[in-house]
Amino acid sequence: MNAEIIAVGSEMLTPDKIDTNSLYLTQELNTLGIEVVAKCIVGDDRVRLTDAIRAAWAHSELVILTGGLGPTEDDVTRDAAAAALAVAMHEDAEAWQAVLDRFKKFGRTPTENNRRQAFILDGADRLPNPNGTAPGQWFQRDGRVLVMLPGPPRELKPMVPAEIVPRLTALLPPLVIRTRWYRVSLIGESDLDALIAPIYTKYTNPATTILAAAGDIDIHLRARCATAEEAETLLAEVGDAIAQVIGDKIYSTNGDALEQVIGKLLIARGQSVAVAESITGGMLGQLITSVPGSSAYFRGGFLTYTNEMKESLLGVPTETLKSMSAVSEDAAKAMAAGARERSGADYALSTTGYADADQAGLVYVGLATPSGVHSRKLQLTGDRHRVRSMTCVNALDWLRRALA
Amino acid sequence: MNAEIIAVGSEMLTPDKIDTNSLYLTQELNTLGIEVVAKCIVGDDRVRLTDAIRAAWAHSELVILTGGLGPTEDDVTRDAAAAALAVAMHEDAEAWQAVLDRFKKFGRTPTENNRRQAFILDGADRLPNPNGTAPGQWFQRDGRVLVMLPGPPRELKPMVPAEIVPRLTALLPPLVIRTRWYRVSLIGESDLDALIAPIYTKYTNPATTILAAAGDIDIHLRARCATAEEAETLLAEVGDAIAQVIGDKIYSTNGDALEQVIGKLLIARGQSVAVAESITGGMLGQLITSVPGSSAYFRGGFLTYTNEMKESLLGVPTETLKSMSAVSEDAAKAMAAGARERSGADYALSTTGYADADQAGLVYVGLATPSGVHSRKLQLTGDRHRVRSMTCVNALDWLRRALA
Repeated sequence: MNAEIIAVGSEMLTPDKIDTNSLYLTQELNTLGIEVVAKCIVGDDRVRLTDAIRAAWAHSELVILTGGLGPTEDDVTRDAAAAALAVAMHEDAEAWQAVLDRFKKFGRTPTENNRRQAFILDGADRLPNPNGTAPGQWFQRDGRVLVMLPGPPRELKPMVPAEIVPRLTALLPPLVIRTRWYRVSLIGESDLDALIAPIYTKYTNPATTILAAAGDIDIHLRARCATAEEAETLLAEVGDAIAQVIGDKIYSTNGDALEQVIGKLLIARGQSVAVAESITGGMLGQLITSVPGSSAYFRGGFLTYTNEMKESLLGVPTETLKSMSAVSEDAAKAMAAGARERSGADYALSTTGYADADQAGLVYVGLATPSGVHSRKLQLTGDRHRVRSMTCVNALDWLRRALA
Repeated sequence: MNAEIIAVGSEMLTPDKIDTNSLYLTQELNTLGIEVVAKCIVGDDRVRLTDAIRAAWAHSELVILTGGLGPTEDDVTRDAAAAALAVAMHEDAEAWQAVLDRFKKFGRTPTENNRRQAFILDGADRLPNPNGTAPGQWFQRDGRVLVMLPGPPRELKPMVPAEIVPRLTALLPPLVIRTRWYRVSLIGESDLDALIAPIYTKYTNPATTILAAAGDIDIHLRARCATAEEAETLLAEVGDAIAQVIGDKIYSTNGDALEQVIGKLLIARGQSVAVAESITGGMLGQLITSVPGSSAYFRGGFLTYTNEMKESLLGVPTETLKSMSAVSEDAAKAMAAGARERSGADYALSTTGYADADQAGLVYVGLATPSGVHSRKLQLTGDRHRVRSMTCVNALDWLRRALA
């Protein structure tokens, strides 16, 4: 079953407002194995909303509307739904009684326009709303469902487990969902896709999703089957083939970030790491220490932005800085070696390079290990932030491989 | 002019993903006086997307599509737009050359599927994308406009001021827009709103927008008038009143971030800064060095995560660490003093505290200046990331006030 969610209300179309209801509903629907294939926010415009509902109803088995169920002229959800489905409405006696009861409880009198809130689509179930005046509605026809829910999260949220989940569960075939998650570093999205598309495009089950961020790609596989065994077999069939072509560029299969993977490897080996940063200016240390418990293996670091600091803190030879410049293989090595020695850590990473100006993107990364000191030249692209981020990904991935 | 925004990509239909592009675009469109009347997220489904584009095109003068311009079969935006508008596409020679150039720059070879990225709607302008392979497109017909932009924010964002705003401005009636921008630190959003709502709610012109992030609030005022003089008068009337009640919590009036403000102050005074970080593990250094040109005033730093490092690198007395613990006023002072002395910088900031576990949120910040060493105790709330971020904001804001 596929779902679309339509949130109604002009107030959600500002630069700083987020439709949190749809995130919550997506979570609940995914848990049931229902995929959300589109979501919209439509202002208080009956014509536009009617069109949006009609399109959703044509494409998806489940349409959930949130908001726009208040008592004013602005509240257009009921009317638009009735128009889109070509269904009449009636005043529901129980719904009106619930409105009266609620007003009585607060010692107030409903106005005539509150009657609008008691209007229910012909053939729909009224869904009680314990925290507000507007009831929800559940309308089912030809195997399709349209749901209306109130907009305020404190009214909507309790209604989902109470009214929506049980009704949906009754409609769904019993299915088991199993997932795999590969995290991959240092490969371009199109290169990766060229590698794995020949595999995953052959299957709709498991479904494959690829998410790319700077230096990092997540591959999600989701199998939905009648039994767990069947799902695991499908995941193995597709997942193992994908894992084989990507190889050791996969750094995690459980969602761990690169810095978490490194932390676990260091803990397992009882070893520690330090950093010496020039171009990244603290970003590498900040990433490593973003992991709770990192004090167990992170000894510290040296932000040596000036040549004097590289000399005095890390013992990088004046000669190296003069003859080779601070952005060189030798400087990166000397920084890593100095950081390892002066921190007492087992491993040390160093970074030096140009983040902007003429030679932007020229970076050297150093790695000092118990068995030697190495450096690598990188030629990165993008703005200052990207060059610095990619430097960190390269450094961390190098350490991961050294530890693995 | 009314606008609709359609974001394309199944990855944005998960329970934890937010379409930040649409928030940014809404901000930019509102600044031009264009209202966003609907926005949608549609998965990678050509048929559904074609329908969504057709509906938006029927209802609004401006339709902006983001994402789905990549090289894979999954990237359906171009095809769907062509189908919805009943327009053919052609391979654009310049667009293909741009793809080739970009790959060449990185020493890579495009795959055959990259050709898809050079397809342009007949009659559309190609919009250059300096940070990615996929160009944008601008298609205009019968007074309506359809725009396609790449999904990654670092590609999309620079294209909006460069390509979209000027083209839209040319279509709009001539109105003069003048803005003010206050950036405010270390005050809660509701406290701030209680202070300034009595002022700004009296006016619809200038329009006031408040954007809140952790430790940071932006207040935008936008006046739209027939003349610049009129607009400036309105801005002064509302803006000056707002500035007066907020006082020196305003750290910037030109959009500069806190670390940029500090950089300019240090450059103006010919002075320098260093850091000694424990709880923030490099975040403070990373923030300071995120500013291009920061090598002019950032000398470097010490990430002293262990007590041994605090002793050996910064000379924090063993006594202090034993009797007072590493999270104490004395430790923060000794760290700042040690960092200042050993880096030769004029100022040094230090951070020490607990990011999680029992005493999470207890933080000391130190500041060493040419005239003395000070420390402050903070009691912060939130998760590890927020505690570390707020520690940085507090430290930087303290330095700003010391320099101002």
